[in-house]
Amino acid sequence: MVSNTPLLDTVTMPADTRGMALGQLRQLADEVRAEMIDAVSTTGGHLGAGLGVVELTVALHHVFETPRDILIWDVGHQAYPHKILTGRRDRMRTLRQGGGLSGFTKRAESEYDAFGAAHAATSISAALGFCAARDQRGDNNKVIAVIGDGSMSAGMAYEAMNNAAETTKQLIVVLNDNDMSIAPPVGGMSAYMARLVSGGGYQSLRKLGKTMAGALPKPLQEAARKAEEFARGMVTGGTFFEELGFYYIGPIDGHDLENLVQVLKNAKEFNDRPVLVHVVTQKGKGYAPAENAADKYHGVVKFDVVTGKQAKTPAATPSYTKVFATELIKQAERDDRIVAITAAMPSGTGLDLFGQRFPDRTYDVGIAEQHAVTFAAGLAADGMKPFAAIYSTFLQRGYDQVVHDVAIQGLPVRFAIDRAGLVGADGPTHAGSFDIGFLGALPGFVVMAAADENELARMVATSAAIDDRPSAFRYPRGDGTGVGVPDFAEPLEIGKGRILREGNALAILSLGTRLAETLHAADILAAHGLTATVADARFAKPLDEEMILRLAREHECLITIEEGSVGGFGAFVLQMLAERGALDRGLKVRTLTLPDIFQDQDKPEIMYAQAHLDAEAIVRTALKALGVDQATTNLRA
Amino acid sequence: MVSNTPLLDTVTMPADTRGMALGQLRQLADEVRAEMIDAVSTTGGHLGAGLGVVELTVALHHVFETPRDILIWDVGHQAYPHKILTGRRDRMRTLRQGGGLSGFTKRAESEYDAFGAAHAATSISAALGFCAARDQRGDNNKVIAVIGDGSMSAGMAYEAMNNAAETTKQLIVVLNDNDMSIAPPVGGMSAYMARLVSGGGYQSLRKLGKTMAGALPKPLQEAARKAEEFARGMVTGGTFFEELGFYYIGPIDGHDLENLVQVLKNAKEFNDRPVLVHVVTQKGKGYAPAENAADKYHGVVKFDVVTGKQAKTPAATPSYTKVFATELIKQAERDDRIVAITAAMPSGTGLDLFGQRFPDRTYDVGIAEQHAVTFAAGLAADGMKPFAAIYSTFLQRGYDQVVHDVAIQGLPVRFAIDRAGLVGADGPTHAGSFDIGFLGALPGFVVMAAADENELARMVATSAAIDDRPSAFRYPRGDGTGVGVPDFAEPLEIGKGRILREGNALAILSLGTRLAETLHAADILAAHGLTATVADARFAKPLDEEMILRLAREHECLITIEEGSVGGFGAFVLQMLAERGALDRGLKVRTLTLPDIFQDQDKPEIMYAQAHLDAEAIVRTALKALGVDQATTNLRA
Repeated sequence: MVSNTPLLDTVTMPADTRGMALGQLRQLADEVRAEMIDAVSTTGGHLGAGLGVVELTVALHHVFETPRDILIWDVGHQAYPHKILTGRRDRMRTLRQGGGLSGFTKRAESEYDAFGAAHAATSISAALGFCAARDQRGDNNKVIAVIGDGSMSAGMAYEAMNNAAETTKQLIVVLNDNDMSIAPPVGGMSAYMARLVSGGGYQSLRKLGKTMAGALPKPLQEAARKAEEFARGMVTGGTFFEELGFYYIGPIDGHDLENLVQVLKNAKEFNDRPVLVHVVTQKGKGYAPAENAADKYHGVVKFDVVTGKQAKTPAATPSYTKVFATELIKQAERDDRIVAITAAMPSGTGLDLFGQRFPDRTYDVGIAEQHAVTFAAGLAADGMKPFAAIYSTFLQRGYDQVVHDVAIQGLPVRFAIDRAGLVGADGPTHAGSFDIGFLGALPGFVVMAAADENELARMVATSAAIDDRPSAFRYPRGDGTGVGVPDFAEPLEIGKGRILREGNALAILSLGTRLAETLHAADILAAHGLTATVADARFAKPLDEEMILRLAREHECLITIEEGSVGGFGAFVLQMLAERGALDRGLKVRTLTLPDIFQDQDKPEIMYAQAHLDAEAIVRTALKALGVDQATTNLRA
Repeated sequence: MVSNTPLLDTVTMPADTRGMALGQLRQLADEVRAEMIDAVSTTGGHLGAGLGVVELTVALHHVFETPRDILIWDVGHQAYPHKILTGRRDRMRTLRQGGGLSGFTKRAESEYDAFGAAHAATSISAALGFCAARDQRGDNNKVIAVIGDGSMSAGMAYEAMNNAAETTKQLIVVLNDNDMSIAPPVGGMSAYMARLVSGGGYQSLRKLGKTMAGALPKPLQEAARKAEEFARGMVTGGTFFEELGFYYIGPIDGHDLENLVQVLKNAKEFNDRPVLVHVVTQKGKGYAPAENAADKYHGVVKFDVVTGKQAKTPAATPSYTKVFATELIKQAERDDRIVAITAAMPSGTGLDLFGQRFPDRTYDVGIAEQHAVTFAAGLAADGMKPFAAIYSTFLQRGYDQVVHDVAIQGLPVRFAIDRAGLVGADGPTHAGSFDIGFLGALPGFVVMAAADENELARMVATSAAIDDRPSAFRYPRGDGTGVGVPDFAEPLEIGKGRILREGNALAILSLGTRLAETLHAADILAAHGLTATVADARFAKPLDEEMILRLAREHECLITIEEGSVGGFGAFVLQMLAERGALDRGLKVRTLTLPDIFQDQDKPEIMYAQAHLDAEAIVRTALKALGVDQATTNLRA
């Protein structure tokens, strides 16, 4: 912990802030900010978002009776100040580390984390669940959802807002509207919020807010409120939220603690319909290097607190993300029907690079995966070649659209699935565990997984060439193996795998980037006289039946390995082998998959070892299946 | 075809309507309506929705140059008039039959079906895809999406509207707003639209619309339009759509052809931003029995055209849907923490019955599966026992929420999954094919499938009792087997299947309602001297490993059967058997699943036969696996 935080040192739990005067709250906020900057400087993590809500966090815990009052943070990456104030200060330097605090809110971590998060736009729905439960019980605790303006592009937020007034009479939604200058606004809603803030209403309301907040009687007279509502709607244009049934307050300055506290106190008193408090904050607030950075230090590695300089080390090999972007640009240069779609992740997916090269052929639809998928389907239906670049975990948001709009219609949408498999520090909410199964179950889909960056380049080319059905290729977070990529990657033959090494004791069939560990395992086994045939399936669908049947026929033991859950690649292999009668006479087959638990964050290599998907685990599985006593082979990894 | 349709008889394709005068269009609409009523009276299907859009359909095809102009119907169940006008009149009496026309729009069926549908709220996203493709090409065709007010509760519609203005300058969205008296409005958006219609603006605009539509210069003067916009926004409150970047026109009378044609002609001319035309229609319009019915003949079976009397035959056994509802009511009577959630399907899921008994414990959130799931998660997090009743196919809409908000947090949300497996007339878009796989892959989930109505009753009780993790139980569309349900169904032991019959030639392990066919298959096999052990797995997760390992150990052949795709139950069984070494010494195992195609609509029994999931197919599989020559056994089914 940083020194010189005398007031924060007295705060064990939020209740300790309830008696504080405004001046103390101001000091507390400053100390929380200093503490957070120092902690994140040693761990890395999400910095900008948390800096923006320091005052809001202090005000919320001061005004509301958490944890009895339910406070739900959307996404949760802005909840570091909240963690500092809710009994986790001493663990802040374990953030996002193995065994440490999660980088998001997490129910298992604290009773103050009423509802865990990490994906966007879930908070209002969850809050309505808490409201409905409270109303069923006849209880009177408050429920507050804090949601960022970015999440407001997600249909889920709209679905929840649409249901708010019908579900409950008491809910507080805090719209945490970051400084609009950070990123170009995406979508009509974003533009609308920008107009609310820039339209003059904000300035006048800073004064109006203070007056109103302090002076209004509680409970407010119905007539007075109606009149005021009307006036406010006219001034600020908050009618969008009003039309959905909310009482709208704002926009207000999210760094003005006096204002915040007063407005939240008033919002707490409304009990005839939901309230939306529109708070304007500045991402990165209070830390000059963050304020001055283009990304406001959204996500950082370790850094020097004084200079803000991040300890970034250049990668020896390009990331898979970069390889994907580079190859897609090459393809697009040769085919002007190629367009690219991202759902608010231009930099995460590498489509920022594509967008620099082809700004008019790049669509950022905001956090809106459902729309992204069907939009891509529409493009494909009209003859374009859309690449939808979506993380595995976020593609879950568009699953019905993948089934209903893409697969059933057999439209050639290409899915570039980044963050496949385990992702490390972001933990279970961001793991890409299920896509092989949920895409591979769909008739007509081509599903690929890249073993290295050269393979990824070839899969981009393959997808570009597949124009009569949907296709997908998955690849992990992180850097390539260093094999390099040729100038022009050749498309693969659909449904054909490759044999990398021939052996006779067993066969190991890998899908995806476990191939490196598989080869390593084969080396270890070879050192003990057990030679393995190693194959790269490349395709989870359609399977290379000829190759796989040969592996089954010619070996006593067949091990499959993938970076995904049960019901995926290994399952498809088994179902095909069963159907072909290839199991009838006995085959020591084992399918290595992610385990049946949600793994907490750690270094990916540690997580894969825990998942029994590293070379040693492959070796253990092989020896056990073959009935070889591990101890007697003097095994060394 | 009905007689006395002289004008419709001259219309082969929409182009034939382009030269028609208003009076002729009126007559054409009347003839289309008569033809549609007659056709649906012989096939059954969706009637009310189509009746409501007869004039709109005629006007759209008259004003726009379909199929060059792209017309996309949301959901598609209102597209019967569209089918009549687009070269499919002679096949209307094959609607929803095997080999016949789809009950929805379908690309494979006609070039006039630019984008297929069946699930709600996809049309604007798809239309934007067509717009983007057009804009990329520099083409000038128009794109029109017709979306119902019900679909406007879906987040996907909002995501698309939010992206409209940024994606294109030319798109026409027709909001087809059914008479608000049909159903209680769900959500703030619905209430808002009702206010637009009832607020006096409608009446005045009927006149205003005609004046405006006929008189405005094209292209409109920018200044004039801005002024008019402002005025219109004030009068009608259409600012919600305006704030999202649309030019809003409406509300207008959707049965007034003159008005419709003029307004659509004007809408066609706008090319600086998307237009939303708010059209008010009456579901069931023009057919008295439909107009007078509470449900406006939304979906009907065969009926008598003169009287409107439907040929409904009472079922001998209760439907699974009814059994679910009845059992849930029983559980809720004993436990006041039980609440129920539906996403706009109260009658389809049986929750209308629950709602009659427990109105305050029933939540209809509209077409909003994402919200439904996380709302349920919030309820569970605060100690309630939520049952989310969602069709298998629609649960795909909430998949990420199931993963992220329910499964990762281990919250005891109960999913009642109706319409599991093939559904018959509604075809591939409504089949419940993938849920076993996509839920069974999730750590901690309990996944059940009912073999008959008694089992379903027990699974409702089981889910009610499971309060420490998520659970789901699936059951098909249609009627139970007649086994009956006791007054109080006992919960099942989690992860325990049951043996129904012992044999020695093979084991057949069924999950779900294929059990009846499985027993039938066992009878056929027994008649030929091959006795089968028949087991009901009950649980796809956790598997009854002890029972399944016994089946594998004691039989030469093990066949699994399920009403689901690859990567589901059979896959889980195989992966477990492989891991336990139960395949090492040989097992003739076969996993029967839905085939790797999307099956077109037909009678469910025919579809299951096509899928090789009926008794005969089980027998064929068994004989082949056992190496018994089918011809020599003189097999008779």
